[in-house]
Amino acid sequence: MASISNAFSLSLPSNRIANSSSDFNPITSALSGLDSGEFSPGRVAVSKPSGIGGRICANATPVMDQPVGEKSSGAPTIVEVDLGNRSYPIYIGSGLFDQPELLQKHVHGKKVIVVTNTTIAPLYLDKVVEALTKGNTAVSVEYVILPDGEKFKDMDTLMKVFDKAIESRLDRRCTFVALGGGVIGDMCGFAAASFLVNFIQIPTTVMAQVDSSVGGKTGINHPLGKNLIGAFYQPQCVLIDTDTLDTLPDRELASGLAEVIKYGLIRDAEFFQWQEKNMEKLIASIVDAYASLVYYNNISYTSTVVLSSLLQGIFLQAYMQSGVVNCRNPNALAYAIKRSCENKAEVVSFDEKESGLRATLNLGHTFGHAIETGFGYGQWLHGEAVAAGMVMAVDMSYRLGWIDSSIVKRVDDILLRAKLPTAPPETMTVEMFKSVMAVDKKVADGLLRLILLKGPLGNCVFTGEYDRKALDDTLSAFCKS
Amino acid sequence: MASISNAFSLSLPSNRIANSSSDFNPITSALSGLDSGEFSPGRVAVSKPSGIGGRICANATPVMDQPVGEKSSGAPTIVEVDLGNRSYPIYIGSGLFDQPELLQKHVHGKKVIVVTNTTIAPLYLDKVVEALTKGNTAVSVEYVILPDGEKFKDMDTLMKVFDKAIESRLDRRCTFVALGGGVIGDMCGFAAASFLVNFIQIPTTVMAQVDSSVGGKTGINHPLGKNLIGAFYQPQCVLIDTDTLDTLPDRELASGLAEVIKYGLIRDAEFFQWQEKNMEKLIASIVDAYASLVYYNNISYTSTVVLSSLLQGIFLQAYMQSGVVNCRNPNALAYAIKRSCENKAEVVSFDEKESGLRATLNLGHTFGHAIETGFGYGQWLHGEAVAAGMVMAVDMSYRLGWIDSSIVKRVDDILLRAKLPTAPPETMTVEMFKSVMAVDKKVADGLLRLILLKGPLGNCVFTGEYDRKALDDTLSAFCKS
Repeated sequence: MASISNAFSLSLPSNRIANSSSDFNPITSALSGLDSGEFSPGRVAVSKPSGIGGRICANATPVMDQPVGEKSSGAPTIVEVDLGNRSYPIYIGSGLFDQPELLQKHVHGKKVIVVTNTTIAPLYLDKVVEALTKGNTAVSVEYVILPDGEKFKDMDTLMKVFDKAIESRLDRRCTFVALGGGVIGDMCGFAAASFLVNFIQIPTTVMAQVDSSVGGKTGINHPLGKNLIGAFYQPQCVLIDTDTLDTLPDRELASGLAEVIKYGLIRDAEFFQWQEKNMEKLIASIVDAYASLVYYNNISYTSTVVLSSLLQGIFLQAYMQSGVVNCRNPNALAYAIKRSCENKAEVVSFDEKESGLRATLNLGHTFGHAIETGFGYGQWLHGEAVAAGMVMAVDMSYRLGWIDSSIVKRVDDILLRAKLPTAPPETMTVEMFKSVMAVDKKVADGLLRLILLKGPLGNCVFTGEYDRKALDDTLSAFCKS
Repeated sequence: MASISNAFSLSLPSNRIANSSSDFNPITSALSGLDSGEFSPGRVAVSKPSGIGGRICANATPVMDQPVGEKSSGAPTIVEVDLGNRSYPIYIGSGLFDQPELLQKHVHGKKVIVVTNTTIAPLYLDKVVEALTKGNTAVSVEYVILPDGEKFKDMDTLMKVFDKAIESRLDRRCTFVALGGGVIGDMCGFAAASFLVNFIQIPTTVMAQVDSSVGGKTGINHPLGKNLIGAFYQPQCVLIDTDTLDTLPDRELASGLAEVIKYGLIRDAEFFQWQEKNMEKLIASIVDAYASLVYYNNISYTSTVVLSSLLQGIFLQAYMQSGVVNCRNPNALAYAIKRSCENKAEVVSFDEKESGLRATLNLGHTFGHAIETGFGYGQWLHGEAVAAGMVMAVDMSYRLGWIDSSIVKRVDDILLRAKLPTAPPETMTVEMFKSVMAVDKKVADGLLRLILLKGPLGNCVFTGEYDRKALDDTLSAFCKS
C-alpha cells in the first residue's frame, strides 16, 4: 500500500490490472469500434422507461469484442482486485447467471442468504437462487427482501438481515449474497462483516457495478451523515451480469455514469475522452429512443422535433412497450463498467483502507454528501448529488488556479449529456453545506480535506491545504443564501 | 497463524510471551511467596462488600515483586500481544492512571471519546480524563455514559455511542476509549471498528482484564444469542490499573476468576496448580473478611461461627466501612491477571480470527451461553454461566473417557472455592440448551463443535467429533427435564 501524505498528485498508470481471460484491448477496440458515431442498437426489447420492472434495453454484451446484439455465453471478462490474501475477481459479462459455477466456487458452507430488495427480488432472485443451487443440492438458500431505497440504509433495516440470518440458524460457514444496488451491497457487506462470514456482491445497477460493490467499503447511514457506520470488508467475488441493466431505470443509469465520469477526471484522461465521444451510446434518453425509432422505422428525424415533450413521452412509452425500441448500447456500457472497475481496483489495490490515494475516488462526494444529507436522503440519487458535487469541486479547483477553464467546460458538458445535474438543488444553502461537511469522514483533526483537480485532465489532489476563500466563493456561487 | 483442523490437541508452551520490563519470575515468586498459606493483607481500606461505589480492598500491586501493601509508582508489567502490524501492549499495574504518558502515547488525533457506564463513571471517569489530558492541552475529551449491564449490550445502546461521536464531530483521527467491564469494552470496540477509528481498552473488572479486553473480539448481542454481531478489531493498547479492582463487587470478581481457572484447564496446568494453592487469596468472601478481622483484632476465629449469616453481614459491613478490613490479596490478583493475559495473548497471537486454536478459549462457553440466553441475560454473570458450563464440559469429557475422575473433582473443588456455581440454574431444560446451542457461532455446517478436555490436566480439544450420546447424557444429568 502506498504511503501517501496529506496532499499528493495522482497520475498513476492505469494499466496494471490483470486483464482477465479476454484478450480484448479496451482502448483500441473502444476507439476503433465505438468512436465512429454510428448508432447500432442491439436486439429489440420490451421497455418501460421509468419505474421498475420493465425491460429497457438489449443485452449488454460483456465487452466490446463480439458482435453487437449477440447474446454472450462465453467466459466473463475478469478484473482482479489485488489485495494479497483478500484478493478477489470481478466477473463482467452477459448471461453470467446462466453460469452457476462462477458463483458456486465462491460459496463457503452449506447455507446461503441472499439479501435483496423489493424491486430486484421479482426480477432476479429466482435466477440467482437457481445459479446458487443448480447441480448443487448440498446448498440451501434463504433470502431476505428489504425495502428499496437509501432511506432504508439504516440500523433498523440492517437488523432485519441479522434477524433472518440468526432465525435461519446460519453459522460462520455460510455465505451472504448481496443482490441489488449500492444500498443492498453496502448493507449486506456490513452485515457479513459483523457476522464474520463470507459474502458475494451481485450488483444490478451501474452505480453499484462501477463503484460501491468494488473495494470492500460496507456500511450504513446515520441520521447525521452518510456511511458513517461501517467496515472495510472484501467480498469473495463480484459478479456483474450486464443483463441486469436491461431493467435499470434511466435515472439510475445516469446516476451510475457520474462515477464513470469521475474515473476519467481523477486518473484516466483517455477514458474521459472515450466518454466524450461515446456518451450518447451509454445513456437512455428520449433523443436516443427517437434515434432508434428513426433507425428502425425510417421516420424523419427532423419531424420529431415538432412533438411536444408530453406527446413524446406517451408515444414513446407505448412504442417501447411494443418491444421494437432499443436505446442503450450494451457494448459501450460493458466497456465503461470494465474500465471503471479496472480504475477502482487499481486504486483499492494501492490503498485498501483509504489512507490517502483511495480518498480521491470521492471527487465531488463531499459536496454531494452534503446535498444528499441536507436535501434529504432519497430526493436525489447518489450519482446526481455527486455530479453536482463534481461541478462544485471543479469550480473550486478553477478558482484556486489549479486547472484551466477548458476542463470546467468539458465537465459541465459531459454531465449535461449524461442527463445529470450540474448544480445543487436551489434549496441548498451555504450553511447547510458547511454543517454537513463538518462531519464528513475526510475531516481530520478539524481540517476538511477535499479532492480537487490540479493540472492537466486526469490529475487530482486530496488535500486540506487550500485557500478557504475559494471554498466560500464556490459555496456562494452555487447557493442563493 | 497456525492452520488448525477441526480437532486438535493443545499443549503449546506458554512461555513465548515477551515478559515485559519486569524481571519478575511469576512462577517462582508465586510458589515461594504466596503458597505458604499465610494471610498477609495489604493496607486497609474503606469497604462495601456488595453493590457499587465502595472500596473493598487495598491496592493491587502490579505483580508480586514488591512488598505487599506498598503503592506502586513504578513501570507497569507489559504483556505484548504479537499480531504483526496490529500488535499492542497490555499494561498491568497499580497507579497507572497516575502515569499519563502510558495512555497519551496511544491516542491518535486531537479528540477522544470515553465510553463508560453509570457504575464506573463516578468512580474513574475523572481520573481517566485527567490521564488523557494532563500536560496535553491539544486533546479534548468527550464521553458517553451508557446504562450498566449485559442487557444493554444491544444495537440501541450502541447507537448512543455513534450518536455522541457524530454529534461531537469526531472524525477518523479520533480515539475511542473503553472504560469499564466486558460489555463496555465489546461495545466500544465494535463502535470503533464500525467508525474506523483507533481505540484503547481500560478494563475495570477481572473478567474484562483477563478475557474480553484482550484479543480484539468486539460486538453486541442479538436477542437470539450473545455476541452474534461483531468484528475482530484490535486496540492500540490495554491499560489495566489494578487499583480499579478496589471497587469491584465480590460476585463480579468471582465471575472473572472463572476465566482465570479456564486458562489453567485448557493450557496451563502449572497455573491451575498455583490457583489450587492460592484461591482464597484471590477471592473476597465473608470468611476472608473474618480472617482479616481476626488477624487485625485478635478476635477468636472460632467465636465467629456462632453468628448468624445476617449478623455477620451487618457486622462486617459496618466494620469494613470503618476501613480496617482487607480481604483480597492484591499481589495474587495481579499475578493471576498477568498470567491470564499471557495465556490469552499467546493463543490470540497464534490464531487471531479464531480459525481453531482460539476457540479453545471458549471452554464452557457454549453451555454457558445457553445458560445466559435461556435464563435471560443479566440473571447470571458471564463467568458464573461459564463456570457451570465448564463443569458440564468436564462432565462430558469424562463420559467420553477423555479425562480421569480426578480432574472432574479438582474442577468442581476449585470452582466452589471461587464461590462459583457448579451446575446450571434449575430452570434450564435440555431443550433450552439445545435450541440455544444450535445457533452457537461454533456450529459449522450444522455440526456443533465443543471444547472438551482430553488427556492430562492442561490439555483440550476443539472438535465436532464426539459421541452425541455423551452430550445428551451430560444435558440430562444437569437438567431436571
